[in-house]
Amino acid sequence: MSVSDRLKAAGVTLPEARPPVANYVPYVITGNLLFISGQVSITPDGLIKGRLGEDMTIEQGQQAARACAINLIAQMQAALGDLERVTRIVKLGGFVNAAKDFVDIPKVVNGCSDLMVEAFGDKGRHARSAVACPVLPMGVAVEVDAVVEFA
Amino acid sequence: MSVSDRLKAAGVTLPEARPPVANYVPYVITGNLLFISGQVSITPDGLIKGRLGEDMTIEQGQQAARACAINLIAQMQAALGDLERVTRIVKLGGFVNAAKDFVDIPKVVNGCSDLMVEAFGDKGRHARSAVACPVLPMGVAVEVDAVVEFA
Amino acid sequence: MSVSDRLKAAGVTLPEARPPVANYVPYVITGNLLFISGQVSITPDGLIKGRLGEDMTIEQGQQAARACAINLIAQMQAALGDLERVTRIVKLGGFVNAAKDFVDIPKVVNGCSDLMVEAFGDKGRHARSAVACPVLPMGVAVEVDAVVEFA
Repeated sequence: MSVSDRLKAAGVTLPEARPPVANYVPYVITGNLLFISGQVSITPDGLIKGRLGEDMTIEQGQQAARACAINLIAQMQAALGDLERVTRIVKLGGFVNAAKDFVDIPKVVNGCSDLMVEAFGDKGRHARSAVACPVLPMGVAVEVDAVVEFA
Repeated sequence: MSVSDRLKAAGVTLPEARPPVANYVPYVITGNLLFISGQVSITPDGLIKGRLGEDMTIEQGQQAARACAINLIAQMQAALGDLERVTRIVKLGGFVNAAKDFVDIPKVVNGCSDLMVEAFGDKGRHARSAVACPVLPMGVAVEVDAVVEFA
Repeated sequence: MSVSDRLKAAGVTLPEARPPVANYVPYVITGNLLFISGQVSITPDGLIKGRLGEDMTIEQGQQAARACAINLIAQMQAALGDLERVTRIVKLGGFVNAAKDFVDIPKVVNGCSDLMVEAFGDKGRHARSAVACPVLPMGVAVEVDAVVEFA
């Protein structure tokens, strides 16, 4: 199954890759590695804002993290032209907007990790860090950056 | 002196490499680089939870960071089979669960950095970032991820 | 125009590369990549401390981020001997000391990003993540780490 078919099966329509909100670029290639800028939780319907442990459920947080995954994949498509060129999702850095008593950060970031595995199969199995922040850009719930290996 | 002998001299017994707590893998290899997932402060006795500047001393924070180092080294052992294959600890990303008036973050992360140098000598001297988080997964005190070069 | 001329045009005098404040090194080279430790907002006049959304304006935050950029470039100079060897600023990781209702994190980190582009032109256009922290080492306002490609 192609990555494109897997995304369809997961019910995902890739949006246009988003331009950065500030003076940087969405990705840089060095050697066979693609470094992707932190993608925030935004969908065609707008920003997914909120703080876990305060005004969002874990499920809502997972949907926010899934939106980050979709935006990361859209950047891979823009950078590589063909998602079949992805040979491995190497590392995700997950940042969750969370109140100080919210400890289920890994469950939230799984919303991003799960879609990577759905889309890329074993090539989508990645190393990861997942931490909390007191706030994130524009008040979004989740931001995730990535290192991707490609051929 | 071998890394194994250095670890013994430091009083460290490597635990089994820990499985990830969510849908990711503990490490990914790309080229001659090993990207290791964020390792939290956990020992065979359980999680080291707490927040610096609130309910932990700096010394307790350093012990938590040292536990992260031990877990990172256990992942290197699992990934490479032989710690002598490590040619350089390239980068550590340290995250400390801290109250907003706690500024001694570097001292805490030294608990991890010091063991890297004890275990690997000059090869253990690494680049590093060290920042605070309002909370960390499962309420742990410290999380550290790593990039390691190997032969 | 050389990087050195561009820095002069931007009114920047590079300081000596700063020694790390703890048990790590300011940079590590692996292959053609330079990993630089998190550089904090410090100038020859001292630390730029503060928390965005509490006791600093966005403009002051941007100046703090610019100080991080200058310190990163000083490390590149120390590591490579000649800034013309930089072929690409690959990735910046920006951490802003911010109150939980401060959402203009990208604007602050632009203080660092803008100087990279001023100094290196298109080679300075980088991938980036930008997040908030409840506090940073020694109470500084901004910390930024970097991955740089060189020849």
